[in-house]
Parts: sequence; C-alpha cells; structure tokens
Amino acid sequence: MSVSKHRFSFEIVRTCPETGARAGILSTPHSVIETPVFMPVGTQATVKTMSQQELEDIDVRIILWNTYHLYLRPGAELVREAGGLHSFMGWNGSILTDSGGFQVFSLNDLRKITEDGVTFKSHIDGSFHLFTPERVMEIQHDLGADIIMTFDECIEYPSSHDYVNKSCLLTEKWAARCRETHEKLNDGSNVLFGICQGSVYPELREKFAVRLVEMDFWGYAIVGLSVGEPKNRMLEMIEVTNTVLPEEKPRYLMGVGFPDDLVESVSRGIDMFDCVMPTRNARNGTVFTRMGKVVLKNAHQAHEFTPIDPECGCSTCHNYSKAYIRHLFQTGEILAPRLATIHSIYFYINTMREMRRAIMEDRFPQWREEFFRLYRNEDETDEP
Amino acid sequence: MSVSKHRFSFEIVRTCPETGARAGILSTPHSVIETPVFMPVGTQATVKTMSQQELEDIDVRIILWNTYHLYLRPGAELVREAGGLHSFMGWNGSILTDSGGFQVFSLNDLRKITEDGVTFKSHIDGSFHLFTPERVMEIQHDLGADIIMTFDECIEYPSSHDYVNKSCLLTEKWAARCRETHEKLNDGSNVLFGICQGSVYPELREKFAVRLVEMDFWGYAIVGLSVGEPKNRMLEMIEVTNTVLPEEKPRYLMGVGFPDDLVESVSRGIDMFDCVMPTRNARNGTVFTRMGKVVLKNAHQAHEFTPIDPECGCSTCHNYSKAYIRHLFQTGEILAPRLATIHSIYFYINTMREMRRAIMEDRFPQWREEFFRLYRNEDETDEP
Repeated sequence: MSVSKHRFSFEIVRTCPETGARAGILSTPHSVIETPVFMPVGTQATVKTMSQQELEDIDVRIILWNTYHLYLRPGAELVREAGGLHSFMGWNGSILTDSGGFQVFSLNDLRKITEDGVTFKSHIDGSFHLFTPERVMEIQHDLGADIIMTFDECIEYPSSHDYVNKSCLLTEKWAARCRETHEKLNDGSNVLFGICQGSVYPELREKFAVRLVEMDFWGYAIVGLSVGEPKNRMLEMIEVTNTVLPEEKPRYLMGVGFPDDLVESVSRGIDMFDCVMPTRNARNGTVFTRMGKVVLKNAHQAHEFTPIDPECGCSTCHNYSKAYIRHLFQTGEILAPRLATIHSIYFYINTMREMRRAIMEDRFPQWREEFFRLYRNEDETDEP
Repeated sequence: MSVSKHRFSFEIVRTCPETGARAGILSTPHSVIETPVFMPVGTQATVKTMSQQELEDIDVRIILWNTYHLYLRPGAELVREAGGLHSFMGWNGSILTDSGGFQVFSLNDLRKITEDGVTFKSHIDGSFHLFTPERVMEIQHDLGADIIMTFDECIEYPSSHDYVNKSCLLTEKWAARCRETHEKLNDGSNVLFGICQGSVYPELREKFAVRLVEMDFWGYAIVGLSVGEPKNRMLEMIEVTNTVLPEEKPRYLMGVGFPDDLVESVSRGIDMFDCVMPTRNARNGTVFTRMGKVVLKNAHQAHEFTPIDPECGCSTCHNYSKAYIRHLFQTGEILAPRLATIHSIYFYINTMREMRRAIMEDRFPQWREEFFRLYRNEDETDEP
C-alpha cells in the first residue's frame, strides 16, 4: 500500500447478473482499492481513536477526510506546507475529501446561501468564512486528496418539490463551476466526482443526474439519502439514479450507513460508501457483528468473558472479552472506544470483502440471503 | 512473553564496581524481566490509551496495577471470576499490584486510621470500605498478580520525626500481619514485597529497614520518596536503605520518577521502578527524550514536520511528526495522547535497556555522564 506510480482507473471486473451488484478495481496513485469499498471517516485528519498503522492492518486502503474540519484546523495552508494530507498524517493509502457542504449546512445555523456560495460561521471560534465552488476546489487541491467532490447544497428532509428543484439547479451550477476550476487546477494528482441530489423525488433525481452525466465527471456520488426518509424510498432513489449513471464509472453513496444498508445498496450497484456510523456507535459502546448489534455497556456483559464475536478476525476479538471492554467503558478508559472501533471498522471492511468475493464467485444472492438471516436475528437489545 | 513454567527467581548478573548499579534477571511464572526495569502503571486494568499488544511491542514485560482502583471497579470478585487479571485483561506478561495504601491515603480526605486498618470512602460512589493488612492480602490474591505488596501507612511530607516513628511502627505491625496472611494464602502463584518507610529521617529509614529484613520478604520497596523533599534527600534515603537491604533481593523504588531520577537511583543500586509520570505527562502533551522535555502543544510545533526524536525507535517517531501530533492535541483527538504515550513508555523502557547494557559492558559511569550531558541541555521550555 505504499506510494506507487498507479494512474487513476476504475474497472468493473464482475457484475452479479441477478442483482446488478458490481465487483471492481479502483486505482489511485496511492492504492489499489477493491470495490465495493467502505471508507472510514477521519473527521479531523484521524479516524477517531485509531492509528494509521491499525487502519492498514485492517486493510483499509482509502479514507474520507472532512474538508470543512481540516479547513478550520489545521488549515489547508498548513497541510499544503506539510506536503499534503498523506505526508501530514503519515497515511500511505488513498484519500477522498468531501466538499465541506454537509458540515457547512448541518453545523451552522447562521449560514447564508447565495448564488455565489455559502457564508458560514466556524463552530470553533465563531469566525465567518465563505465557501464558493472555486474556493472548495482550491482547498481540496491544497489538502492533496486523490478523489475530491463538487460543492453542493445539502437539502433537509423533508423539503418541497419546488425547493428541491431550485436547490438542484444551484447545485448543478456549482458543479459546472467546480468542473471548470478543477480543469484549471488539475495536475493529474486527483479526480473529481459530481454529486447527485434530488431528495426523494424520482423525476428530479433522474433529471439532474442526466445533466451531471453530461458534464462528464470521473465518478458520481448519490447524496442526501439516509436523512430520515423511509428506507424503501432511499433504495428507490438509488435505483432511479443508477439507471442514469454510466456503467463504467464509480458510484458512491455518501454517508450510508448501517450494515444492512450497505448490502442493499451493493445489491443495487453501488461501489463506494462512507459513514461515521461504525466509528461513532463504537465510541458509544455499540458495535455490529454478523449477528446484529452488540451493546457493550449492558450490565450483563460484566460477566461475558468471551469476545464480541468469537469468529471475528479482528485484534479486539482475538485478545479481549466483552467483560473487559465493558469495564473499560464503565471506567471511561480510552482503550474502550479504541477496541470497539477496531472491531467495527474490521466488521465493515470484512463485510465488503465478503460481498466482493461472493460477487466474484457468482453467489452474491445466496450470500445476501445468509447475511440477512443471521443479521436480523438480533440477540441484543438496548437496555432502557 | 507467553505463560511458561518459570519459577520466581532473582539474580544479579553484574554490578557496576564504581557506582553499585546492578543488572539482574527477575523471573515470574509470566515473564523473564531484565533489571533495572521500569513498570508502566495501569491504574484501572489498562495503561491509559495503550493496548496490551502495544505494550508487548515495546518490550514491556511487567506492569503495575492499582489494587485500590481494581477493588472498586470491576471488583476483586469479578477479576477472580475471570480467572485473574492476566486472563481478564489479556495480558501475558508479569503483574505487580500495589497495596492500595497510596490511593487510600491520597484520594480520601475522610479516611480513618486505626491499629486494625483504614476505613475510607470510595471516590466513585462515596461508599465506605475497610482495608486491613489481611483484606489487602486477600484482594491481591484474588487479583492474581505475580508480585504483591504489604499494606502500609503513607506518610505526608513533611512530617515530624515523632509522627514518622509511630507511623513506621504501625506499618511494621501491618507488614508482619501481611506476611502471616500471605503464608496462609500462598499457593506459589505470587511473592510478597515488604515496604520501607521512614520519610527523610535516615535513622528511621535504617531502623525499620533492618526490622523488615528480619521478617524476610521476597523483595523490598522503598517508598514515601519523591513527594516534595529535596532531591539530594531522596538519594540519601535510597543510599541509607540500600546499605541495609540484602544484596541478593530485588529493590524497588515506588512511584519514581523523572528520567534523571531513574538514572540516579539505578546508580545507587535500585532494580525496579514504577511511575505515572511518563503516561500522565504524555496525555498532557509533554514527553521526554534523550534531549530532555518536549512540549508538544507549543505553538511553534505546528510547523515542525519532524518526529519528536528522529533517532527514537518508537512507532510514533517512525510514523508521525510533531506538527501532526500537535494538531491532534489541538483538536482533542484520542490519537494525540496515544501517540505521546507510546513515545514516552518506549523512551523509559529504552533508557532502562541502555542502562542495563552499559552495566553489562562495564561502561555505566560513562553512559551516565553522556546521558546527563544530553538530557540537561534542554531545548524546549514551557510557553507561558
């Protein structure tokens, strides 16, 4: 996973004839990534609690970093001075940065949207900042990611058809400006993904995806889902958008989700995912396994001297019991979120790896059935 | 470092003729420990921020756990149910537990001392508990440590000669009761160290050390130092006590200290150390190096794209820059104290290893001179 002379490329190597699930190879100058892939989220230049070596050990080959957070701290200039994010944080794999849009909209009550861009207030010191499509391209170039994203307006759920249509028109204009700025800045060190919005309106999803495809991005992200809409609407939006997106380009479902969401979305032809779900839940003491959710803080775990999942291959399950991890959570020790996070990331990465193997071996539908049979038979419930 | 059939043994393999510094081998059923040795402190069944694998990677072979904290959470019964501390926390090396005395005295304003023992209030839930010498022996047996300590009264500094004398008489009686209880409970799974108090009064240090030696403990701890007294008094007390302690038994200076304290104390024939210093300071952003102290939070570190110590062999120095670690401290990320702690523990362990090698190669005085030359030429100062 060291730096090499790979060029950017994406290739579908097998498609499940029954479901449309795809196995592919995504190459960047920093790593060769087997898809479908789950990208852990490293908000502030660190996947919370984990070292870069631990991520490599789990075979993580690409991470998502948040442009908004890095822009505020340590700042894009400092990262550029350090030689880019890879060098700054000692990460040899690939990096994808988001556009900052999601945080600008979700963390800022005082944001102001104009055709030019968004003025927002730093959640750290209250200072005002302006993100325009051009500025966001510059920042992502300074950060030095392999894959960067266009700047979009994030739409709340629910929003009216009229509002979503207007918002998508703005996002489309911003996408064009990003495309143009990227053309100017691009030195071959990164590729740009376009962002498909449209809330839960199939015709808007389709209309704007068609226009985005005309702009010819290197890959496409489907966003604004898993924000409160019914799960079947989410899956319907994925299906609608994927009928429009070109077969040969990577498809990235941003910010999703639960393990079963990943399986359902891969079944509908998604190649890439990111989500804070596994890491955030782990830090709060809830992890996912083949058998569903395990709540590590539950009182009965005090006497469970067995691993989270005896068949799991992660270092947490190899070395530590639920009783010990519960004790660490009870006493507020840092090792608690660490051990839980290692398991969670491993579980996500391994689930993607299992899906890919099943697609390659033409047994994805059977694998999916078995996954849901085990996963939905949850043996843990939250205690009140 | 896996569990083996070693018996308990201690052997001095070389002594520096000029200083009296000793290189030895301390064996327990769980590990073979080269002395002089520094034992990291794992207050609540974890060396804060570190995994047991990381400690093994740094070649830590023995850890100190706090009886007081483990007694309160998760409780000695639960640890016994788990099969002892080694099994509970997945640690294959040796374990030393303290007697709980230090925490009982330092964390409890409402403690009540009688000849029988100490009644104290839990700092967690305010419940009342009684530690007697007998109870403390039982608890340490339940915890399953390899090396356990007698229960003593911790003396504040400064204290009057009269108070210290009376306190040492009580500690002596408690030591005898611990010795007796240990005889009854002992199944060969652990050995008992006696504790030498005496504040800064040489004649009390000597008198009570002589009596403790008559009780014939497996090893001896010198305690109640590095609590505010001038450094030369501390070294004088070590010297006085060591004239009395038997040559062939391990000598353990509890709760000390700074890197230069370790070197001075090894020079005076100390074999074992523990201290929260390296881990606690690291979590606050200060680490030690061959060149002295480095304050990682200092503003100028923002642009220092070099390791804490380019010649250090730890994984933090191999992979991360001061600028990155400072960013992690600034943003409150868990990886910050992790990376600092790894460096600090490695530095302490490696300094002990270097001292041992120098003793073995009959060049300890020269090593010590070079150590102080580099170490006292500090290139960092705390910013106001």
